[in-house]
Amino acid sequence: MAAGELIPIGVVHSPLTDRAAAPKQGHEGAPDAWVVFESAVADGLDGIREGDELIVLTWLDRARRDVLRVHPRGDPAKREQGVFSTRSPDRPNPIGLHRVRVLALHGLRLKVADLEALDSTPVIDVKPVIATDGR
Amino acid sequence: MAAGELIPIGVVHSPLTDRAAAPKQGHEGAPDAWVVFESAVADGLDGIREGDELIVLTWLDRARRDVLRVHPRGDPAKREQGVFSTRSPDRPNPIGLHRVRVLALHGLRLKVADLEALDSTPVIDVKPVIATDGR
Repeated sequence: MAAGELIPIGVVHSPLTDRAAAPKQGHEGAPDAWVVFESAVADGLDGIREGDELIVLTWLDRARRDVLRVHPRGDPAKREQGVFSTRSPDRPNPIGLHRVRVLALHGLRLKVADLEALDSTPVIDVKPVIATDGR
Repeated sequence: MAAGELIPIGVVHSPLTDRAAAPKQGHEGAPDAWVVFESAVADGLDGIREGDELIVLTWLDRARRDVLRVHPRGDPAKREQGVFSTRSPDRPNPIGLHRVRVLALHGLRLKVADLEALDSTPVIDVKPVIATDGR
């Protein structure tokens, strides 16, 4: 069994540069940010509209991959638990899942609200939220 | 800029073996299925409980990575659009996002409802749903 090599489809441009200062989740006060796509995937953007709710998947390139247990939200007062029951960025495959709202799309540049990823984080996929399940 | 190599943390065991016959989304009638984890990540499972709502991320190893435009839901009557505004498995990084409910956890075996992934699909991450955003 093998899983594949990820190809970045774009990159996050954000004022957030410091993991310690970044909000834990986008709805906790992330600034507006941009996703700048690779020109090779331009055709994949057709259909994205202002106001859409999207899931942006990122590769959390500053996370640790050798961590299996964490204190939730980095709080040492909370009982340590397995990473798969937390949203810790540190995990075997550090994929970030970000629910965002589209503010604008200009060519390859997508402006979004509620993206808590750090500046220069690679983007690996974008999907629509499905209304029937809130995902 | 580079993104990483994915490490499978487990695998889907499901009666679904045929992409054409599988439901498009888990809430459209997926059978109960199992995620069988690698023993190396056992510590990461601590904290998962029966009844939890989780997001399972998979690597859709039978998808095409060279597709940027599709007919939504494979329906030729629907206007072709970019893959990033659809849930098509065919996309540059074929990552599946599945909202599931935990039926049981026995050691490394997690029984879940509403997982539409095909049998033998690699699992790459598991995260809790966050109640405040439905993600």
